[in-house]
Amino acid sequence: MTAGFCVAQEVKEDFKSSTKNQPQQEYPMVNSQGYARYRIVAPNAQSVRVEAGLGAGGNVDLQKGEDGVWTGISSTPLDEGFHYYHLNIDGGTFNDPGTNNYYGSTRWESGIEVPAHDQAFYEERNIPHGFVQQILVWSESTKSLRRAFVYTPPTYYADKADVKYPVLYLQHGWGEDETAWMTQGHANLIMDNLIAEGKIKPFIIVCTYGMTNEGFRPGGMGGMRRPAARPAAGGPEAEAQAPAAAPQGGQRRAGGMMGGFNFDGFQTFLCDELVPYVDAHFRTIANKDNRAMAGLSMGGMETHTITLARPEMFGYYGLLSGGQYTPQEIQDKNQVKKIFMSCGSKEQPDGIKNATAAMKEAGFDVMGYVSEGTAHEFQTWRRSLYFMAQFFWGK
Amino acid sequence: MTAGFCVAQEVKEDFKSSTKNQPQQEYPMVNSQGYARYRIVAPNAQSVRVEAGLGAGGNVDLQKGEDGVWTGISSTPLDEGFHYYHLNIDGGTFNDPGTNNYYGSTRWESGIEVPAHDQAFYEERNIPHGFVQQILVWSESTKSLRRAFVYTPPTYYADKADVKYPVLYLQHGWGEDETAWMTQGHANLIMDNLIAEGKIKPFIIVCTYGMTNEGFRPGGMGGMRRPAARPAAGGPEAEAQAPAAAPQGGQRRAGGMMGGFNFDGFQTFLCDELVPYVDAHFRTIANKDNRAMAGLSMGGMETHTITLARPEMFGYYGLLSGGQYTPQEIQDKNQVKKIFMSCGSKEQPDGIKNATAAMKEAGFDVMGYVSEGTAHEFQTWRRSLYFMAQFFWGK
Repeated sequence: MTAGFCVAQEVKEDFKSSTKNQPQQEYPMVNSQGYARYRIVAPNAQSVRVEAGLGAGGNVDLQKGEDGVWTGISSTPLDEGFHYYHLNIDGGTFNDPGTNNYYGSTRWESGIEVPAHDQAFYEERNIPHGFVQQILVWSESTKSLRRAFVYTPPTYYADKADVKYPVLYLQHGWGEDETAWMTQGHANLIMDNLIAEGKIKPFIIVCTYGMTNEGFRPGGMGGMRRPAARPAAGGPEAEAQAPAAAPQGGQRRAGGMMGGFNFDGFQTFLCDELVPYVDAHFRTIANKDNRAMAGLSMGGMETHTITLARPEMFGYYGLLSGGQYTPQEIQDKNQVKKIFMSCGSKEQPDGIKNATAAMKEAGFDVMGYVSEGTAHEFQTWRRSLYFMAQFFWGK
Repeated sequence: MTAGFCVAQEVKEDFKSSTKNQPQQEYPMVNSQGYARYRIVAPNAQSVRVEAGLGAGGNVDLQKGEDGVWTGISSTPLDEGFHYYHLNIDGGTFNDPGTNNYYGSTRWESGIEVPAHDQAFYEERNIPHGFVQQILVWSESTKSLRRAFVYTPPTYYADKADVKYPVLYLQHGWGEDETAWMTQGHANLIMDNLIAEGKIKPFIIVCTYGMTNEGFRPGGMGGMRRPAARPAAGGPEAEAQAPAAAPQGGQRRAGGMMGGFNFDGFQTFLCDELVPYVDAHFRTIANKDNRAMAGLSMGGMETHTITLARPEMFGYYGLLSGGQYTPQEIQDKNQVKKIFMSCGSKEQPDGIKNATAAMKEAGFDVMGYVSEGTAHEFQTWRRSLYFMAQFFWGK
C-alpha cells in the first residue's frame, strides 16, 4: 500500500482511453507518464487483480469502491507500446471487457497501448493503403486447411501484370498466431507509411501460423475463428510425423529441435507448401535472392533453424529478439545476402551487439538494432520491422 | 433445481467441444441433442451465470463444485448454428475464457456453435479457396480511414485481367461489425463451396461497417483492432452531419431515419466512396445490373432504405430478417432485377411469405425463404446467403 500511495502522489491526471479499447469503452486508460488506470465492474467479487508483465506495469490489485466498482493504477509506468494482460477475478482468469482481444500466450488476451514517442511510423494516414489478404492453403503434409495473411503493397493492383515483388515471410512468437504482426504489430501500416515516404521498394509480407506445439488450426477469418480443442494426436506428435507424410523437400537437411520445439512440420509446410502456393497465386519474384524469412522470439528460432536447414529457400534472414547467427554455423557465406538481428534494450542488447560485430568481422552483410527502452514486447518488433525493411529492400 | 434435475435425466453424455473454442480449450461443450455444458474456473466467486438468448438455451446459473469449479448444462437444447453469449460473474459482465470472441451487441462476445444438420454447405474442403482481403478506404465525408473485407472468388487471380465480376455489398446486423459475415457467417466458405459445386457464377462480396449509432472506427486487422471510446461528437451527430460534407450523390433522394437509425452517413460512404473505391481497385462489372445490396437485421433496414433512396446504385436487393419490400414503395418496377427476403421459422415467417406473395403478384422477380428451426441468429443468415447467392447469380 505504501508503494501504491507514494506512486499515487506523482501520477498526472491526464489519463486517456487506451487505443486498444473496444468501441465506446473508456477504460483502461493511460496517462502521459505511462501509468495505466483500470476499472472493472464486479460488485460481488472478492478480489480483482490485473495480471501483467513487468514492462506492462506488473500486477495490480484493484480496490473495490463503495459503488462496487474495482479500480487501480499501475505501481509503475508501462513501457511505451503494446502489452498483453488479463484479469484474475476470484481465482479465475478472464479478460478485461474494456479492451479488444489479442492472441498471445496461447489465449486471447486483453491488450493495452501506451502511446510511443515514435508512433508516427505506424500511424494511420490518408495515403494509399495496401491490402491484407487472408488466404486458406490446403496442407497435404498435415491434411489440414491452413491460414496465412498476405500484405500486398498499395501499388500491387494498379501495377501491370509483369511487375513482381520480393517477399518477406514474417513469423509471430510463441503463444501468438498469424494475426499478431498485422494486429499487434501494425505491419501493414508500417509498410504503407514506409512506401509512401519512398524509403523502401514495395514488397509482399506473408504471415502464417508457426506454432509447433499445438494442433494445427483450420482457416477462418481475421484471427477470430479457432477450432475446438484437439486430442493429443493433433498435437506435437502429429507435427513430428508430418515431414514423413510430406512431399520430399529435395535438399532438405535435418530441421530438428530447438529449445524443445520441433520445427520439422512447420518447415515442411512453409518451404514445400506455402512458398510454392504464394509464388503461384501472387506476383512474386520467385527466387531466394528476393525471398526473406524473419521472426520474433520463437519465430526467430524458427527462422534460424529453417534458413540453415533449407539454404536454397531464403536470401535474407531476420532474428527479432530471437537469438543470433554465428559465422561458424553458416557454411557457405554466399547462401545469405543480408542478416538482421535485434532486441530491446531491456533484453540482452550485448548479445546482439557482439553477434553483429562477429558476423561483420566474418564478412557478412549484417545490421544489428537495439530498441531503446523496450523489452521482449511488440514495440521492439514494430521498430525492428521498420529498420529491417529498409535494410533488406531500402531505396 | 427440479427443472435442472429433470433435464439432467434426458441429457445424452456425448458432449464434444464447441468448434468456436480457443485452441486446446475443452469447454464449452455441446451434445448431439444441442445441450450446452459450461465450465468456469473461479473458486472464490459468489455467482457465475451464463447469459444467453432463448435460442441459445437461455441463462444458466452455474453450480460451484467442491473443486471450486463452476459447471452447468443449459435447461433446453440450443438451436443449431452459432450463438453469442457472455458470463455474469459476481455482477460483472465477462467472456467465457474457453471461447473465441465475436463482435455482437456492440461488444466482443463469447460464441458457441451447435453443429447443424446441414453444415456441409460451409464446411472446410480441399478445394480452391478465395481470398478475404482487408482494405482500408479513406472516407472524405467522415475524414476517417474505414475498413472493409472483400471476398474474391478462387478464380479471381488466375483469370485474365479482362474477366470481371458482379459484386454483393453485404451488411451485418446491429451491434456487429464488418467481421461478422466472414467469421460468424462463414460467407467465404459458403461461396468457395457453391463455386466448387458449380452452383453459382463467381462474384465478389464486400462487407463494411454499417453501424450508424456509433463513432466511425479506423481500420485495423481482421476485426481485432478497435479505436478508443469516442466523445459524443463522434456518434450519431457526426453521422447526421456527414452527408453535408460528402461529395454530392447526384440523384440522391432523402435517405433518412428508420427505426431510430439515421443511415445518411453510411449511405454516403457506401454509395459515394466505397463502391467507387471497390470498382477502381477490383475487377468488377461496375454497373447496377451487376451490383447487389443485402443485409441482415439492421443491415436489411439499411438495404431497404438505401436501395430505395439510391435506385441508380443496386439492381439486386436482399433483406435477411430485415423487413420486407412492398410493391407501393418501389416506384419504378424496372429499377430492380431481383429481390430476396428471408427470416427464421422462429421469427415471423408469415410476414416474409405474405410480402413475397404480394411482390410476385405485382410482377417482381422475388424469392422468399424461411430457415426451418432457427430464430434471429446466424444459422438463418448463413442459409439465406446460400440461397440468395443462387437466386441472384446461380448457374
